Amino acid sequence: MPRTVVIMSGGIDSTTLLYELIAAGHIVKALSVNYGQRHCRELEAAAHLCTTLAIEHQQIELSATRELFGGNSLMDFAAPIPAGEYSATTMPQTTVPNRNMLLLSLAIGWAISIDYEGVAFGAHAGTTVTYPDCRPEFAAAMHQAALLCDWQPIAVLAPFVTWTKGDVVRRGASLGVPFEWTWSCYQGRERHCGICGTCIDRRRAFIAAGVPDPTDYES
Amino acid sequence: MPRTVVIMSGGIDSTTLLYELIAAGHIVKALSVNYGQRHCRELEAAAHLCTTLAIEHQQIELSATRELFGGNSLMDFAAPIPAGEYSATTMPQTTVPNRNMLLLSLAIGWAISIDYEGVAFGAHAGTTVTYPDCRPEFAAAMHQAALLCDWQPIAVLAPFVTWTKGDVVRRGASLGVPFEWTWSCYQGRERHCGICGTCIDRRRAFIAAGVPDPTDYES
Repeated sequence: MPRTVVIMSGGIDSTTLLYELIAAGHIVKALSVNYGQRHCRELEAAAHLCTTLAIEHQQIELSATRELFGGNSLMDFAAPIPAGEYSATTMPQTTVPNRNMLLLSLAIGWAISIDYEGVAFGAHAGTTVTYPDCRPEFAAAMHQAALLCDWQPIAVLAPFVTWTKGDVVRRGASLGVPFEWTWSCYQGRERHCGICGTCIDRRRAFIAAGVPDPTDYES
Repeated sequence: MPRTVVIMSGGIDSTTLLYELIAAGHIVKALSVNYGQRHCRELEAAAHLCTTLAIEHQQIELSATRELFGGNSLMDFAAPIPAGEYSATTMPQTTVPNRNMLLLSLAIGWAISIDYEGVAFGAHAGTTVTYPDCRPEFAAAMHQAALLCDWQPIAVLAPFVTWTKGDVVRRGASLGVPFEWTWSCYQGRERHCGICGTCIDRRRAFIAAGVPDPTDYES
């Protein structure tokens, strides 16, 4: 059975990815990275989900990257989180530069050190704009690099890379993903704010999928 | 003029790379990463060299990666450092898994955030064995990924990737690199030990290049 490290944020996409790979017969471990996010609600969600699945969950603290990558609202505590849906203007404000390459490099390094054959990440197409490092051609390039970075080739899996978030929710529903335990909101409050870019994406994905949204939104 | 982030360890290769790019007209900043090495002698060397060149030098503390990548002698303080020249057996013991992808991901992220066009690393061919993530095909794959990881393409430069370390020393000598300020040894003592794999590589490179070795070795 393939052994795969899953990059796990605690959101809908990476949680559905975890369920998808388990359903496909993979042996999995999960990796979450604190790269200096404003809050840790999503990491708590990831830990809770892994505990319920009895999956090893490694968390790594890399908030020192904040010194390098300051200036976006996910990491700079002084910058406001933009409200409303993503656009080409607001998306860079919530983007950690080169985040997926950094996460993949750590996951691949861990896979090498524990003798796993692959890593997986939950990249998918955006509803309005797709993050550059979620595009199929980026995932393919990283797969090539991962085949060469060590004597042992590592595969980079991105099974949702051509899907919309609605497609991911539909698949998650069929796999029994407990969406109510996943966390998307950029605000770190008790409940999802309902109005930041990622909350809007979350709401629309459930509507697009025709799946009841169990999320408790503030508004 | 191209603006380039140089991954700087404080050793011969990355120091020569810095001099090479400056000579070629690049505007440069240097990035050093503490990913949990046994000692910081090489980071001190990097800082000193950048100060003398009046180059901005960013250091980032990522020693938390030790939790993920334990078990090799560069990072695991309980593991012995193998003496003698590198071989296919001892090299993995001194390898941080997927180190160059991790370093490149950070350098690329920084380049994006400061609007630089490229990153450079000092990969070159080994005398006996080449690290897998120093091979030309790995550098080419990372270049492809870096062109795609953001809206702004980033170039990955590895001008020494087909050179031997002797070739690097020869070029460094012609560029006036102060080799006596560079640090290679895996031991973190006052002087280079002279007998670990990287000291042996260092000594041989000067001999191969026909350049006087200014290093103060213990033995």
